[in-house]
Amino acid sequence: MKLLIVNPNISHSVTELIEAEARRAASPGTQLTLRTAALGVAYIETRAEAAIGAYATLNELADHFPGHDAAVVAAFGDPGLEAAREMLPIPVVGLTESALMSAAMLGGKIGIVAISRRIRAWYAETVDRYGMTSRLAGIRCLDEPLANIGSVQQDKGEQLVALCEAAIRDDGADVLIIAGAPLAGLARSVAQRIPVPVVDGVSCAVQQAELLARLGPAKATAGSYAAPPVKGAMGLSPALRQLIGREDVA
Amino acid sequence: MKLLIVNPNISHSVTELIEAEARRAASPGTQLTLRTAALGVAYIETRAEAAIGAYATLNELADHFPGHDAAVVAAFGDPGLEAAREMLPIPVVGLTESALMSAAMLGGKIGIVAISRRIRAWYAETVDRYGMTSRLAGIRCLDEPLANIGSVQQDKGEQLVALCEAAIRDDGADVLIIAGAPLAGLARSVAQRIPVPVVDGVSCAVQQAELLARLGPAKATAGSYAAPPVKGAMGLSPALRQLIGREDVA
Amino acid sequence: MKLLIVNPNISHSVTELIEAEARRAASPGTQLTLRTAALGVAYIETRAEAAIGAYATLNELADHFPGHDAAVVAAFGDPGLEAAREMLPIPVVGLTESALMSAAMLGGKIGIVAISRRIRAWYAETVDRYGMTSRLAGIRCLDEPLANIGSVQQDKGEQLVALCEAAIRDDGADVLIIAGAPLAGLARSVAQRIPVPVVDGVSCAVQQAELLARLGPAKATAGSYAAPPVKGAMGLSPALRQLIGREDVA
Amino acid sequence: MKLLIVNPNISHSVTELIEAEARRAASPGTQLTLRTAALGVAYIETRAEAAIGAYATLNELADHFPGHDAAVVAAFGDPGLEAAREMLPIPVVGLTESALMSAAMLGGKIGIVAISRRIRAWYAETVDRYGMTSRLAGIRCLDEPLANIGSVQQDKGEQLVALCEAAIRDDGADVLIIAGAPLAGLARSVAQRIPVPVVDGVSCAVQQAELLARLGPAKATAGSYAAPPVKGAMGLSPALRQLIGREDVA
Amino acid sequence: MKLLIVNPNISHSVTELIEAEARRAASPGTQLTLRTAALGVAYIETRAEAAIGAYATLNELADHFPGHDAAVVAAFGDPGLEAAREMLPIPVVGLTESALMSAAMLGGKIGIVAISRRIRAWYAETVDRYGMTSRLAGIRCLDEPLANIGSVQQDKGEQLVALCEAAIRDDGADVLIIAGAPLAGLARSVAQRIPVPVVDGVSCAVQQAELLARLGPAKATAGSYAAPPVKGAMGLSPALRQLIGREDVA
Amino acid sequence: MKLLIVNPNISHSVTELIEAEARRAASPGTQLTLRTAALGVAYIETRAEAAIGAYATLNELADHFPGHDAAVVAAFGDPGLEAAREMLPIPVVGLTESALMSAAMLGGKIGIVAISRRIRAWYAETVDRYGMTSRLAGIRCLDEPLANIGSVQQDKGEQLVALCEAAIRDDGADVLIIAGAPLAGLARSVAQRIPVPVVDGVSCAVQQAELLARLGPAKATAGSYAAPPVKGAMGLSPALRQLIGREDVA
Repeated sequence: MKLLIVNPNISHSVTELIEAEARRAASPGTQLTLRTAALGVAYIETRAEAAIGAYATLNELADHFPGHDAAVVAAFGDPGLEAAREMLPIPVVGLTESALMSAAMLGGKIGIVAISRRIRAWYAETVDRYGMTSRLAGIRCLDEPLANIGSVQQDKGEQLVALCEAAIRDDGADVLIIAGAPLAGLARSVAQRIPVPVVDGVSCAVQQAELLARLGPAKATAGSYAAPPVKGAMGLSPALRQLIGREDVA
Repeated sequence: MKLLIVNPNISHSVTELIEAEARRAASPGTQLTLRTAALGVAYIETRAEAAIGAYATLNELADHFPGHDAAVVAAFGDPGLEAAREMLPIPVVGLTESALMSAAMLGGKIGIVAISRRIRAWYAETVDRYGMTSRLAGIRCLDEPLANIGSVQQDKGEQLVALCEAAIRDDGADVLIIAGAPLAGLARSVAQRIPVPVVDGVSCAVQQAELLARLGPAKATAGSYAAPPVKGAMGLSPALRQLIGREDVA
Repeated sequence: MKLLIVNPNISHSVTELIEAEARRAASPGTQLTLRTAALGVAYIETRAEAAIGAYATLNELADHFPGHDAAVVAAFGDPGLEAAREMLPIPVVGLTESALMSAAMLGGKIGIVAISRRIRAWYAETVDRYGMTSRLAGIRCLDEPLANIGSVQQDKGEQLVALCEAAIRDDGADVLIIAGAPLAGLARSVAQRIPVPVVDGVSCAVQQAELLARLGPAKATAGSYAAPPVKGAMGLSPALRQLIGREDVA
Repeated sequence: MKLLIVNPNISHSVTELIEAEARRAASPGTQLTLRTAALGVAYIETRAEAAIGAYATLNELADHFPGHDAAVVAAFGDPGLEAAREMLPIPVVGLTESALMSAAMLGGKIGIVAISRRIRAWYAETVDRYGMTSRLAGIRCLDEPLANIGSVQQDKGEQLVALCEAAIRDDGADVLIIAGAPLAGLARSVAQRIPVPVVDGVSCAVQQAELLARLGPAKATAGSYAAPPVKGAMGLSPALRQLIGREDVA
Repeated sequence: MKLLIVNPNISHSVTELIEAEARRAASPGTQLTLRTAALGVAYIETRAEAAIGAYATLNELADHFPGHDAAVVAAFGDPGLEAAREMLPIPVVGLTESALMSAAMLGGKIGIVAISRRIRAWYAETVDRYGMTSRLAGIRCLDEPLANIGSVQQDKGEQLVALCEAAIRDDGADVLIIAGAPLAGLARSVAQRIPVPVVDGVSCAVQQAELLARLGPAKATAGSYAAPPVKGAMGLSPALRQLIGREDVA
Repeated sequence: MKLLIVNPNISHSVTELIEAEARRAASPGTQLTLRTAALGVAYIETRAEAAIGAYATLNELADHFPGHDAAVVAAFGDPGLEAAREMLPIPVVGLTESALMSAAMLGGKIGIVAISRRIRAWYAETVDRYGMTSRLAGIRCLDEPLANIGSVQQDKGEQLVALCEAAIRDDGADVLIIAGAPLAGLARSVAQRIPVPVVDGVSCAVQQAELLARLGPAKATAGSYAAPPVKGAMGLSPALRQLIGREDVA
């Protein structure tokens, strides 16, 4: 089993956090290829940043997917996920989607704990895009600027645990998602202090990607997730152009 | 890894179909315990039958869960699933829920193909209970009585493929679920003839149960999925009474 | 007019509360048969308890419905209601459903006041099952353990009135439901202190059962509420087996 | 028990149909006052006609409610219902609302059979206003102009039965509402030919009005169904002006 | 371009506020005809008052629409709007609808700031009628009686700004609507103090009316917004009777 | 008034169609700047193509917005719209959003007529993103490949009119949107043959852009549509990097 994991952010330190957690979550024989977005921002929090991150992610996926069994879009908010699912012949999962679908099998109402106030609207819209708003207990967040995105787990661990407790007590959460790649691993490290199941995006995504690859579903050739039809294109990378079956505009 | 799989129907022939498909889907080292409901009906299609099947399922789970890492409620419609999730200290998944959550990561609109006209209302209500109605393309079904529940795949294969095609063309399904334990295995055998990804409940449930067991989430001790509080009870099996922490009413 | 009223809990003291309130609510000529669940728990608060209570309720209904014009499932949360409606040839109502439908004709947003924090998730899911979530202002609850389920009205009257006031002021409730059979009668006794209409489940259920019996609708023989089709069964009581038209599995 | 029944249409022939059916549905001791709108149209089918009918209905209710225990707005679509509920100190029900709430206790999905194609949008919006769209199987209608609104049951009986059958078979209706005052009585006369429960607005409304009057809920003095606050008014009938507690603008 | 603007309230002082703001918002060449309801109340806050205001509004529109290119129903809550849209051959907009649709193009979640606590239920139902509830961040309101409806902007300016700030901070509003004709102009005067876009009903309605008139869509002659079909009528003004194409009942 | 109109497709022939229609729709004094995407595909129909188109659109907007009063994303489906709205200090509208919001003020249920079968899923998801799914009557489409995207109005006019008629008769549409920039102008040319109001995206977008520019709302500095916070970025164009306030990663 080979998984391609793309970090839609440009931060290599975050990619390292993702990789460490992904290796813990993956099955023994699974090989991981990690990629970091070549363009974009250090940490996606807004719709504009996500739109840019989606493009960067599609480029990484197109360049590197051959030889892999499944792929992971490794930012909560899943920039470019549905686009990649259309385009690639292998299963693709995102952190939000796979965490939501996993959490849904562990309880009723799902609480999300996030890294910044600003990020909440984008997360809420992502949950809604998957039709899961009725399952959402709420999104709680850290409310101060982060000094260092790479050390957020150390700097903010206690606040994050307090947010979890509030989500359970005040929002009625039955299960929690610790959201965002920079928090990868926190779900595991605080699990024994939280009185409901806690999952995180990276572990869920890696394991769901493995699961889907094992199920081995055919790539859609009909319906709205078939590959885009051949048509004129311009300005795309060779891999992107070839993958979605386009000819250059003369 | 040890999984407990309970067939909420009383049909041993269906249990055998479930077991065969579950063994194909399970990881190499996974051990399976199969149980068949001790009371109920041959094949659950209605709310009344499901209510009875839920009780039978809870009894089997209570008697046999010790020593297992996760459990599967192995009838589409998931009778007793949320009740079992409250009650048991290990993850429990159902065929409908795990197929929906897996299918959701393979496409947008999900079509369900079912074994009888009567069963559709129960399935639709099950999908709605999980908040997934907005993802449902539709439920299509065989429309004649089944001569033999054990040979439905052989007898009705062509009709089921035609239903899949109609679900794609007319309902806009991007991914399909072949529903119901008696159809376990059909998804696999017809996959190459269907132009969208096809999953079935047994494979998804077994693999999602393994995944959740590997994630190793804590049992809720707060929220609405904590074990039921201790209180007077009567007429329950010893295992059921003990599991949900009750004392007998004097 | 003869009504069969089944308490899905095993508590005879609660059955007595139900009976007293039911007699006040019933029309002069109406005769009531009261039954208490033969198995289950003292007071249903969770999904697991409700699943067991549903089975117990179906058994009582099957054994005793002949000769009655309608039946009442007399626990808020309505365990087994839809199953009973499929199965029985007479109308069946539940406390939650009949209180919601009655309250809906008295105002816009409906507040529910309940007996324990734990019970709220089950109630919320029951409201949602009936498609009435958009009408729900909220569910407020007592937050301490009850010393005595039989004397909750005396012990907690003031707290319950305060919850009603908060539901109006903070949740925007236009009408209130005092939920749960142990609170039967409280709606009546506090009505003059609450500035919006207040109803309770027992009164609504008894009167809606009478109303439906008078309307005299035919039992469905088509659609998803027709009696379950004949098929093999095992382990059911004679009445249950006969009622849903099954033959024993040889 | 005294009920005030207002026909929001100007057609006395329809009022007579309503009265005949209402007398059959009412309890033995119940007295009925029938009123016909003093302004408006022969048969309300559209939003504009309903807005006019609402005003006419409020005037009739204001003039005649004293001495009655409950009131009925006797046109499907319930023109002015919520306004009347705010304004009057007695319970007020409408044909659509009471039929929906009664039907909801007899099955899952509710089909409506209506008198004209044009009327469907107004009915659909009425169902939605009550938050019951998720329960609606569909609205089917006669598709030709009616020669005579007073004899529609005789002229169109067979077509209406065919619509009922299509609603069950094609829309999945578990229970049917024969809609519209001119069809009052049809539900009863065709009930034995239809394989699911059938209700009609007039019977449901009369019986629900009696039920609410017996429950005896207090008039709201808080929340959004309290009587409108005192303020300047102009051009209103004396009864309307007094009822909603206004002083004339000098 | 000529616009007919009808104030559904009887308050001429409010009509003057509307007119002043409408003139500021209108394009240079646009002529405005202002009308005040001939019957009803000083300021509509409830469903009953809105039902009466709808009738008054339809009468004003019927009497005065000839020669105009579009019409505005100038009370937040839009009494009679859909009825007028059916009935009139020119576009008709309401304050709530046009403010919602304009605000929706300026942000995601929309907050409404209103003049009284009582008015909130009616506003919420209006938003829901347009299918926009999922876009609503919340409705905040002044909570004390208004000494003078005509000077509310002066008397309550600071409180209204505080409500705006709370809507942004606590409800997550991305854009705000200052609701109600008496607040016409407040959006403009406080805009520079509020950190999100602020719109008001009068400006939006005038400009959307102009826009729709310029688009020049045909009046519907099919579907549910065609003019009501010809039928017997009684008690209507000549203009109203003629407009909706009815003959008097002999 | 100066408007920037960006065609997210790379087709200059489509840009010309957009420009012609935009000039007809714009107010006399309005100046238009037209831009065509520098990368992407000839005609966006899928999620992958839209993700690429969003990035191309953001680049065009960032490079050219200075000096304009508002901007238009000129492909139905609105690629990058919310991202642009966050990022730019001027109002930005999209074809789908502005057509939906305009159509919503002309009727109840909105039908969309589209250029290809494949494009429907993307359009449906766009409508849902705006919370307008409950207003959607349906999406009907041409079902054959287009020989020439530039001459679709001539080649397919009759089929498109037939689709409009089916949308009214079978889907219950009260108002229609002719979707997609290549159909710009068709709404106008067929309007007199369609019995409900018909709008198109280009006209609505141009006029709504003018309207929002005239309203002159402040750019959000709080909430989720404030400009993205300053943070490290890489690989962005100078305009894009400056616009969203980022410093380069050293």
